[in-house]
Amino acid sequence: MKVNIDGEVKTLFAVWMTDEGVKLIDQRKLPEKIEIFTARSSDDIVHSIKDMLVRGAPAIGVTAAYGLAMAKKNDEDMNKAVEKISKSRPTAYDLFKAIKYMTENNFEPSAAQRYANEILGRSKKIGEYGNELIGKNSRILTHCNAGALAVLDWGTALSPMRFAHKEGKNIFVFVDETRPRLQGSKLTAWELGQEGIDHAIIADNAAGYFMKKGEIDLAIVGADRIASNGDFANKIGTYEKAVLAKENGIPFYVAAPGSTFDFNIKTGDEIPIEERNQDEVLFLNENRIGPVGSNGRNPAFDVTPNKYVTAFITEYGIFKPGDLGSMRQAMNKDLFMKI
Amino acid sequence: MKVNIDGEVKTLFAVWMTDEGVKLIDQRKLPEKIEIFTARSSDDIVHSIKDMLVRGAPAIGVTAAYGLAMAKKNDEDMNKAVEKISKSRPTAYDLFKAIKYMTENNFEPSAAQRYANEILGRSKKIGEYGNELIGKNSRILTHCNAGALAVLDWGTALSPMRFAHKEGKNIFVFVDETRPRLQGSKLTAWELGQEGIDHAIIADNAAGYFMKKGEIDLAIVGADRIASNGDFANKIGTYEKAVLAKENGIPFYVAAPGSTFDFNIKTGDEIPIEERNQDEVLFLNENRIGPVGSNGRNPAFDVTPNKYVTAFITEYGIFKPGDLGSMRQAMNKDLFMKI
Repeated sequence: MKVNIDGEVKTLFAVWMTDEGVKLIDQRKLPEKIEIFTARSSDDIVHSIKDMLVRGAPAIGVTAAYGLAMAKKNDEDMNKAVEKISKSRPTAYDLFKAIKYMTENNFEPSAAQRYANEILGRSKKIGEYGNELIGKNSRILTHCNAGALAVLDWGTALSPMRFAHKEGKNIFVFVDETRPRLQGSKLTAWELGQEGIDHAIIADNAAGYFMKKGEIDLAIVGADRIASNGDFANKIGTYEKAVLAKENGIPFYVAAPGSTFDFNIKTGDEIPIEERNQDEVLFLNENRIGPVGSNGRNPAFDVTPNKYVTAFITEYGIFKPGDLGSMRQAMNKDLFMKI
Repeated sequence: MKVNIDGEVKTLFAVWMTDEGVKLIDQRKLPEKIEIFTARSSDDIVHSIKDMLVRGAPAIGVTAAYGLAMAKKNDEDMNKAVEKISKSRPTAYDLFKAIKYMTENNFEPSAAQRYANEILGRSKKIGEYGNELIGKNSRILTHCNAGALAVLDWGTALSPMRFAHKEGKNIFVFVDETRPRLQGSKLTAWELGQEGIDHAIIADNAAGYFMKKGEIDLAIVGADRIASNGDFANKIGTYEKAVLAKENGIPFYVAAPGSTFDFNIKTGDEIPIEERNQDEVLFLNENRIGPVGSNGRNPAFDVTPNKYVTAFITEYGIFKPGDLGSMRQAMNKDLFMKI
C-alpha cells in the first residue's frame, strides 16, 4: 500500500521482515501519526499483537510467522516462543495456522515469506474478482476496515476498490465512520486517502439516507466468520447496512478469503457475539460523551442472515450464498487451507 | 423535569420566567454541567436562541414569548425587539407562532404564560396517549432527543416513557447515541437519568442488533416535519431505524404535536434536507477523528416514508398514517392551531 511519510510516498506492507527485526505500522497511532515499530524478540511480537499495534486476522498470522523466524534466527527457546505467541490473541484462527505452518517448516525465514505471499496472493485474487462487479463510475459503501492494514496489502473489502482505481475507474467510496471504535474514519479513510481514492466519511446513521437517495450503487464489506449457509458475522452495524441495501435494491457483497469460512457451523446462530467494555460507547479518545451514571451496551459484532447477501467475493471466485457448496469444493483442493 | 443540582433534586422547566429575567438551562453545557442562564434583555434572548443555549422548536417558541413579555416590562422598543427575535432562528415555525401570539396579546406576561401552558399541556397529552402503547416491561428504542429540554417539560417521544415510569411500569430505554451531534448520549440519556428511568446508550450501529435479538419491543421517535401522507423528517438515522423495525416486526411510533404536521405538503419529497458542516463528522469535541485530507458528508435529517410508521402519537390521540384526515379535522377545531 502507498504510505506518505513526510511528503515522500513509499510502498509498504502492514508488516515486513528486515535484518533488524519484524517491522510494522503501529495502527494505534493512525491516522494522526505514521510510526514504524520494530519487534526484535518474541516478546516484542507478543506486545505488537496483544496491544493491537497490528490488527486483522491475516496480518496477525503473518506477524506471528515472521516473529517465529526471527526468534529462531536469534536462538530463542522455540518452545517458549511458540507458547507465548499462541497466547497473544487466543481467538485469532490465523495465528494458530501460522504457528502450525512455521513449526512444520522448522521456523525457516523462507517459510514465513511463503506464508506471507499466500496471504498476499489471496487478497489480490479477491481484488481481481471483485473488480468485475464495479462499474466505471461506481459509488460504493463500506463499513469498518477490511483493508491493507488488516491483510498485509490490498485487503478484502478494499481490494476490489484498489483494483478498480488502478484500472482508471472513477469510483467514489462512502466510508461509514463505524462507531464505537471508528475504524472507518481512522483506518479505511486513511488507506483510501493514501491511495488517492475519492471518498467521504459519513456518520453510520447516514448510510441509509444515501442509499435511498440513489447515491450508492453497491456495498462491499469484510467478514469475521462465515457459516455454511452464508450467514456471516462482521463489525456491529453491518446487519443494519445489509437490511437497508436490500430494502433499496442495492447489491451487498462480502469479501473474504477461504480461511474466514467456517464449514463446521451450519448457521449464524452458532456464532457467539462478544460484548465489549461499555466505555467504548461512553467515551471517545478518553473524553466522556454521555452523562455520569448512564450505562452503555456494546456488542462488537452482529450476524447478518444470508438472505441479505448478494454474493461472497473470495480468492476462488464469486459465490452466491446458495452456492457455497462449490466454494467448499474449491477450498478442499487448496493445499494451503489444509494446514 | 427533575434536575439534580449539587445533590438536590429540583423540578425545572427548560425555560421559565422570573422577576430577574427569563431563565433557561444552558443545553450546550449538558451533560457535564448544569448551568442556568438568565436573559435580561431581548439581546440575551437572541443570544440564547442563536447560540443554541435553548433548542427544540416548542422550547424556542416559549423562550420568544417570555422574552417579549420581559422586553415590554423593561420598556424596550417593541418593534425592534420583535424584529431581532424573529431573525434569531428563521427556520423555526414555533418562533413565529409565539411572536404572533404575543403581538396580538400586547406582550402581556399572562399571554406568555398561556402560550407556555398550551405547549406543556400538549406534551402531557402525548404522554398520556403514548403511555397506552407501553407494556408493563416494555423495552423501548429512541433516537436523538425529543424530550423535556426541547419542549419545556415531558417532551414528545420521551413523554410516554415519563408517564409509563410514573405509573410504575418497569421500562428500559435503548438510547441511540445519535451521531454526529450525539443528542442521544448528551441529552436523552441525561434526561432519563435525572428521572431515574433505566436505560443504556448504544452506538447507532447496534440498534438493529438488539431488534433482531428480540430485545426491543417498540420504538418511539420525534419528528421535525410531517407531510399530509405521513412521510416525516427527523434526525439523520431515523429512516434506518424505521426500516429495521419493520424488518423485525417491531412497532415504530412517531410522537409529535399538531404544530409539526404540515398539511400544505403532500409527501416527504417536498421536505428539503439540510446538509450541515462536514466538521461535525470529522471532529468530536474539537478532536479530529478522521485523517487530514478526508472529506465528510453530513446530512442532518432524513425522510422516513409513511409505510414504516405504525402510528403517530399526538395531543389529539393516536393516528395511523392512512388516517391523518381525522387528525386534520381535530386540528381544525383547535383554536390555538389557528394562530
